[in-house]
Amino acid sequence: MNIYSERIGMLRAQMAENGWDAVIITGSDPHASEYVASRWRQVEWLSGFTGEAGDMVVTPDHAGLWTDSRFFIQAVRQLEGTGIELHKTRVPGAESIPSWLESRASVVAVDGLCQTTDAVMELERAGLKVADVPDLLSSIWPERPQVPGTPVITLSEETVGRSRYDKLTDLRKFLIMNDCDCIFITALDQIAWLLNIRGEDIDYNPYVISYLLVTQSDAIWFAGKEDGPSDPDTQDSFQELESDEVTVMRYDEVHEMIGEMSSEGQQKVFLDLSTICYSLYREVQDAVGEDNIVPGVSPVVLWKAVKNPVEIEGLREASLEDGAAMEKFLFWLDREVHSGRPVTEYEASEKLTAFRSAISGYRGDSFANISAYGPNAALPHYSTPAEGSSVIEPRGLYLVDSGGQYLFGTTDITRTVPMGECTYLEREDYTLVLRGMIALATAVFPEGTAGCQLDVLARNPLWQKHRNFGHGTGHGVGFYSGVHEGPQDIRQNFNPQPLLPGMVTSDEPGMYREGQHGVRHENILLCRRLDENMFGSWLGFETLTLCHIETSAIIRDLMTADEIEWLNTYNRTVFERLSPLLDEETSAWLGSRTRPV
Amino acid sequence: MNIYSERIGMLRAQMAENGWDAVIITGSDPHASEYVASRWRQVEWLSGFTGEAGDMVVTPDHAGLWTDSRFFIQAVRQLEGTGIELHKTRVPGAESIPSWLESRASVVAVDGLCQTTDAVMELERAGLKVADVPDLLSSIWPERPQVPGTPVITLSEETVGRSRYDKLTDLRKFLIMNDCDCIFITALDQIAWLLNIRGEDIDYNPYVISYLLVTQSDAIWFAGKEDGPSDPDTQDSFQELESDEVTVMRYDEVHEMIGEMSSEGQQKVFLDLSTICYSLYREVQDAVGEDNIVPGVSPVVLWKAVKNPVEIEGLREASLEDGAAMEKFLFWLDREVHSGRPVTEYEASEKLTAFRSAISGYRGDSFANISAYGPNAALPHYSTPAEGSSVIEPRGLYLVDSGGQYLFGTTDITRTVPMGECTYLEREDYTLVLRGMIALATAVFPEGTAGCQLDVLARNPLWQKHRNFGHGTGHGVGFYSGVHEGPQDIRQNFNPQPLLPGMVTSDEPGMYREGQHGVRHENILLCRRLDENMFGSWLGFETLTLCHIETSAIIRDLMTADEIEWLNTYNRTVFERLSPLLDEETSAWLGSRTRPV
Repeated sequence: MNIYSERIGMLRAQMAENGWDAVIITGSDPHASEYVASRWRQVEWLSGFTGEAGDMVVTPDHAGLWTDSRFFIQAVRQLEGTGIELHKTRVPGAESIPSWLESRASVVAVDGLCQTTDAVMELERAGLKVADVPDLLSSIWPERPQVPGTPVITLSEETVGRSRYDKLTDLRKFLIMNDCDCIFITALDQIAWLLNIRGEDIDYNPYVISYLLVTQSDAIWFAGKEDGPSDPDTQDSFQELESDEVTVMRYDEVHEMIGEMSSEGQQKVFLDLSTICYSLYREVQDAVGEDNIVPGVSPVVLWKAVKNPVEIEGLREASLEDGAAMEKFLFWLDREVHSGRPVTEYEASEKLTAFRSAISGYRGDSFANISAYGPNAALPHYSTPAEGSSVIEPRGLYLVDSGGQYLFGTTDITRTVPMGECTYLEREDYTLVLRGMIALATAVFPEGTAGCQLDVLARNPLWQKHRNFGHGTGHGVGFYSGVHEGPQDIRQNFNPQPLLPGMVTSDEPGMYREGQHGVRHENILLCRRLDENMFGSWLGFETLTLCHIETSAIIRDLMTADEIEWLNTYNRTVFERLSPLLDEETSAWLGSRTRPV
Repeated sequence: MNIYSERIGMLRAQMAENGWDAVIITGSDPHASEYVASRWRQVEWLSGFTGEAGDMVVTPDHAGLWTDSRFFIQAVRQLEGTGIELHKTRVPGAESIPSWLESRASVVAVDGLCQTTDAVMELERAGLKVADVPDLLSSIWPERPQVPGTPVITLSEETVGRSRYDKLTDLRKFLIMNDCDCIFITALDQIAWLLNIRGEDIDYNPYVISYLLVTQSDAIWFAGKEDGPSDPDTQDSFQELESDEVTVMRYDEVHEMIGEMSSEGQQKVFLDLSTICYSLYREVQDAVGEDNIVPGVSPVVLWKAVKNPVEIEGLREASLEDGAAMEKFLFWLDREVHSGRPVTEYEASEKLTAFRSAISGYRGDSFANISAYGPNAALPHYSTPAEGSSVIEPRGLYLVDSGGQYLFGTTDITRTVPMGECTYLEREDYTLVLRGMIALATAVFPEGTAGCQLDVLARNPLWQKHRNFGHGTGHGVGFYSGVHEGPQDIRQNFNPQPLLPGMVTSDEPGMYREGQHGVRHENILLCRRLDENMFGSWLGFETLTLCHIETSAIIRDLMTADEIEWLNTYNRTVFERLSPLLDEETSAWLGSRTRPV
């Protein structure tokens, strides 16, 4: 019996005691975060599964993990011996948790802090009775970490293009237009954007774990910790916010404040049910009554996604600096591997982070580097182990997916690097994926077009050869914020959100062959307005990412003349823009790697 | 004051008398048909607008026509002087009828026979009180035509691949699986398919205006007319159906029969609210009670769309025969126009129908030929006038969109024919549209893909040049049935219906420049399974249409090598398949037109 079976056993005892037929443990936190602080790595604690997306369901005779194709291989490996079964999501015929539970349980316990209201409503629609038990796992997890409290910094209007005062004014106008008295925001990325603050409470995500309540007269930020701000940065930041009429209160004071909301005097509360957790929703409901809750999508989602000119300039700067770090890394890698010294994936990853961290304004990586050689690259979300990672050989394909957080932007880039001789299949996959990336990057489309209507462009070269990849083609990217953001994306799912000028989205088709190799090419695209004519208003993309694409693995005959021209132009631009930032040796090397094909 | 203002005046008097704030007159009939018999050409009677899609709203101070971009130019012309305003649908910011009425009316009268239940529910959701007045216009339209009663024929199992007995058995199994006692079907295409019958009650649509009620023990077909079947074909057909245990009753007896449905004994009725008209829905509701209505999509929609092997063979045969008629027509056109004799669009249209009608099994055209020269082709749904149509000159582009109804299938084809010298813009549009058509025809996609996910392939070559077309790329095509059928389509709208093997869909991108020219290329595609591998199950298309594509207007440099190869292969196939059906002269001409480029 391993540690996970033991923990599941303790949970089952708790279930029996309370008369629950099932318990759902999600991979999220009270802020509907995609990435969470260690306190909320509940699925990992219970199952050993470390993927970023996964929910668990435990019944008296079954323990299951629901996750998507990005994590199938990892889940199989990590769940081995735990007795936990893998339930695949986002595949044809996949059964959702509510529908799986429908015939197997009547009372389901959830940690209402870590379930969105929408998700609980779905359970109820499936006929399940939901018992909300905040911090459900705490009683059997004595060493559970506390809510973190890392230093808080503020960003100036010069850096982000709009002051918190103006942003809050926009939000207050929105409330008036929607006949609401206040909005209660729990999503950490929205709070960081609105208040122009950043923290380090969650790895790779520069957020401050907090809540925000905005009325016409007040803005109350529940961000303080038990013992007050301990470091000077946070003290300064809190003071700056107070002088901007943002009241700072303690994180745990939010419950008391909700309790004081009154249903008298028409206190209408705007809530985004897709992000507010169920426990807080219930507290608001108890305080003001169901009829005074106005459900809707927070306007901050779209405001944040459409970058302003200052943010766009910042992202261009970030792409430039980040690209130079990438080229330094790729040059180092090329030389080291071909010198015959065994370089591991982990060493390479550390080296890349070192190059990035030398950039002024660097605040950390935007996610854990994926540094994957050979068959490891077949796992789209491979987690490079610190100990015992593979050696990068001078042949085949090495894949590196990484990004940086800078005061002036966020980056996300994937390069697949032919380390030497490649098989025909490796080269074919490399070429087809590249064609898909180019097709999306050069797309032109009328205003109103959504990402799902463009997705096929990136897949078509693969589909023509009866190949495909199991993840989305593109996700929104924040400005010194989460590397994944909505509301737009580029994937097969019917997301009706049109791509708007100012939105920044990744372009990352791939190809994965278990046990063999993986290919992914990823650039970041800025949506821009091109022109307007009798047929409509036309949009297109500017590629922000600057880092050369290796040409040695390309099968030229599979590409069109236009594609070759795009590639040569891109590589030339990369050389011209980056060489001033590189030393002579690196620059010369880059010159040789970007020669036209 | 013209005739239409007069009629609208009469309607307004009726409105005032009854206390209605608004009246909606739809372009449909009691069967939710897209094309209707003259009795239901109510919008035309009231407004003079002859387009196939249009709904009218009349209030005391406004008369408006709602239609989509296919008919904008036509509507502007036909509504001139009537005082009726055009409301554009399917454009950004378009306001639907319910939302337009929301602030302008409280009581809205509708002819509940010509409104689907879904549409009325939408009005009610907008807070409107709906007065259902069956045959609302009849009192002010004394010469209103009767319900037609054309000859009814039956199709054998050898022709359609499945007997009516087997089809009804499938439907009865469906009822059992859905805990229903009966299904009431009002859609004419579904009835024709289920019973293997055809008629001529609606121009171009081989239907019998009728209703069908199917229980476990009975199938009652409400198809007879007042004075019984007058022609021997219909008498034979009715007898054949009776011997197959289908009871034939009079069309107007349906109301009495619904009245006899009882809510006792758990009489559960399956109804497709998207096709059943509101008046009949209310009658069923009164008879069995709301709780005994099971709403859903009729399974016949999908069964009918997925063609069986016999139907597929029939459609291949129809494409062959139809293609030969098209080539005879194109040869005639080429010779006549270049002989210097003035050939009008109308004469050409008549000639084309004459070539088609010589085919054994021909039952009529599948829609009114669109025979459009020069600027007329800029109207995607141009209606060629019998008097005063344009002369086809030996230069520029002539567009012909047409199709046939055969006992063994339905066809729909568009060819744009360069009649001589063309401008660069004409040639460029011609080439880009062709590239789009080829891209869709050669698409390969995993099982589960919907048409809206492929649509961009047909638009991309145009979008790249900031051009677009305002209609869908593809619609389902029936088997000796409506030339438009669901549930699948290929367009921008999010229709989640996946394309399935056996479905037949058009591929018809276009380009229209008002006052200049129009281009459309249309082939019919059969969806087929290609193979299955580790990445999924792969589908693709077989092009059914056989008629050469003119190469003289092509700008070769705009096309890829693969596209040129597709075109040459297609034209060679057309020649090889069709020349055995053509006389020597026509065959030689076709040989010269299909020389590889």
